[in-house]
Amino acid sequence: MTAERLASLHAVYRDGLRDCAAFWLRHGLDREAGGLLTGLDHDGTVIDTDKAVWLQGRAAWTFATLYNTVEPRPEWRDASRHCLDFIRRHARGPRGKLYFTVTRHGRPLRMRRYVFSESFAAIGSAAYARAMGDAAVAAEAAEYFDTYLHHSFTPGVMPPKTEPATRPMKGVAPLMIAIATAQELRTNLGDITVRDRTCTGWIDWAIGEIARDFYKPELSALLECVAPDGSVIDHFDGRTLNPGHAIECAWFILHEARLRKRDPVLLRLGLGILDCMWERGWDREFGGLLYFTDLHGLPVQEYWAGMKFWWPHNEAVIATLLAWHLTGNEKYAVWHGLVHNWAHRVFADPEHGEWFGYAYRDGSISTQLKGNLWKGPFHLPRMQWYCARLIEERLAAGAPGPA
Amino acid sequence: MTAERLASLHAVYRDGLRDCAAFWLRHGLDREAGGLLTGLDHDGTVIDTDKAVWLQGRAAWTFATLYNTVEPRPEWRDASRHCLDFIRRHARGPRGKLYFTVTRHGRPLRMRRYVFSESFAAIGSAAYARAMGDAAVAAEAAEYFDTYLHHSFTPGVMPPKTEPATRPMKGVAPLMIAIATAQELRTNLGDITVRDRTCTGWIDWAIGEIARDFYKPELSALLECVAPDGSVIDHFDGRTLNPGHAIECAWFILHEARLRKRDPVLLRLGLGILDCMWERGWDREFGGLLYFTDLHGLPVQEYWAGMKFWWPHNEAVIATLLAWHLTGNEKYAVWHGLVHNWAHRVFADPEHGEWFGYAYRDGSISTQLKGNLWKGPFHLPRMQWYCARLIEERLAAGAPGPA
Repeated sequence: MTAERLASLHAVYRDGLRDCAAFWLRHGLDREAGGLLTGLDHDGTVIDTDKAVWLQGRAAWTFATLYNTVEPRPEWRDASRHCLDFIRRHARGPRGKLYFTVTRHGRPLRMRRYVFSESFAAIGSAAYARAMGDAAVAAEAAEYFDTYLHHSFTPGVMPPKTEPATRPMKGVAPLMIAIATAQELRTNLGDITVRDRTCTGWIDWAIGEIARDFYKPELSALLECVAPDGSVIDHFDGRTLNPGHAIECAWFILHEARLRKRDPVLLRLGLGILDCMWERGWDREFGGLLYFTDLHGLPVQEYWAGMKFWWPHNEAVIATLLAWHLTGNEKYAVWHGLVHNWAHRVFADPEHGEWFGYAYRDGSISTQLKGNLWKGPFHLPRMQWYCARLIEERLAAGAPGPA
Repeated sequence: MTAERLASLHAVYRDGLRDCAAFWLRHGLDREAGGLLTGLDHDGTVIDTDKAVWLQGRAAWTFATLYNTVEPRPEWRDASRHCLDFIRRHARGPRGKLYFTVTRHGRPLRMRRYVFSESFAAIGSAAYARAMGDAAVAAEAAEYFDTYLHHSFTPGVMPPKTEPATRPMKGVAPLMIAIATAQELRTNLGDITVRDRTCTGWIDWAIGEIARDFYKPELSALLECVAPDGSVIDHFDGRTLNPGHAIECAWFILHEARLRKRDPVLLRLGLGILDCMWERGWDREFGGLLYFTDLHGLPVQEYWAGMKFWWPHNEAVIATLLAWHLTGNEKYAVWHGLVHNWAHRVFADPEHGEWFGYAYRDGSISTQLKGNLWKGPFHLPRMQWYCARLIEERLAAGAPGPA
């Protein structure tokens, strides 16, 4: 990685971030009904007005984080508050649990089993609380996280999809989200205690669970779901790997290693996951990251498994740049170049801004949508923000060469 | 359509049907644990042993129907009984409703809201009851259909996915399945009465609902879901069209027209749906039927909307051949040639038998699976069986030219 390449990457992320934020403020912010509209066509035209609650929380996090760390622009702070207000007014179900989707004006559409709306409301609230020094919003962030932890990890609270007496399972996703949420709460509110553990305590616990039960170095894989004792469930569900998701997990752990002065145990774990899941996910025929692969190389149940989504590429751009930053290993710079270039070539839309979200295996775009109930101002701007900041930190610290 | 072409098509369907049935008997029949295994790799290797209950019922129908109408081969009759026995022994949930999936040995895995397991158990039982003259199994068929009708059409029984107070919706699928199930019960058991209506009564009622609330000639579309009064729900869900599914609906109605001496009202309805949904679904760039399209030509929420699945092509092969048979309109022979040739070129596997199930938009196969929880011995052999029988009937009746 040359100094020139690093400077040019920095410009791509920094300018991309501003463009991305501007796209959502211009097309998504719902000044009439509150919150953010995310059902957007390629040119930003709103084609569906239903609102996903988790995207309100994610957008609140993105805009408040830009306000806190990039530039204190009032429209970013206001956009964050706008989304949090919408959640507070319209997203709570009868027993306090947040809906998954509501109408434009906030009437309930769908409640789901899981609690990801809560985790993203938590990080949005935490970042906004820091922006405004608002203790009430900080308390809300802690409450949302409390609900998230309660539903995710208290046995019996979340109804399982599969009969637990027949095939008990547990997933890596709730642990990953626990890490990322706790990291953001700690960054913005300090190492507060929620449900009898500090944020750092939750991070250590969740990483420990992942290392013990989900990461299988002997199989070169991070599994998405396992039996309660961590053993492999040799069925479609248990064998299905999600390389981009695992690589996201890797960088959450590498980020923790970075904060803990390159803690060698965390470094080894994060790099181990990144290494094996890159090998499993990178498509040597067409480039890009395959969405799902099978532990034993068998066909995957999902017929669209070979498709390429924008977000796994965002995660892999972060993970590879961070791994290079932490190790100086040129392998990661090469991987970073591969995924950065492929993703920008396939998904970026220089004409109307933002990225397309979905491509067939060969990299041809499958839908013109810029947003939907799953895609909003989060993965892409988080990548642009994280990578720009990481490069700035390196440059501020001295030479751009190996760390 | 020349006599030569018709004879060659007949051979393709007749021989294909025997090959397809043999593939499933050889690779799928679970002689140890009962029922049928459907998680099969391209060469028939079992790669997952979980069983979808609806595929047990569908397989029971296919094998019993071959026994009843093609040749009384004991292994077909036995395979049908084998699948029905498995359902009877292992698929009933606590309140009698059938599970969606169970393990190889019949332990419960997943219960779903809907009742398609029941509708397919009904047609499987009806066909088997006819094969054996078994009144007890005939009674079971009627009970399964009763349960299906109760859950599908008694207000409040099936829990809705979307908050009904905010956005009440109803779907075309339950009506279509009611037609097809009632048609099969009538064929095999006579025009019996279930829940106070004859099979013909249910067919007339369901077709009436579809004609009144789902088919919109002024919009050139059959909608998948509408508001209770039949109005368009202008959101992703309400705008999403499924051309192959609509074309399946068209042939259910055309089949009824065929049985009623080309009833002009049914003929006009079935042809109207086929015409507009073919125009919407046929992919002029790559050939094949797009899985989902949008009522207004907007992007669809499902990112894999442009993929090509095997079964819509099976339905379109039947619908176009039947439309040509009933009308003599050469347009339908042309469409039939297009879809028959495209589907056989893309999906058929001359090496190992059966068809692949899923292709990207350009027709490249996306997974090597021959079966899963959704694909078993049903759509493909039903097409081969229906088309072979239709051609035989024409040939027996005289000239193969326009009807």
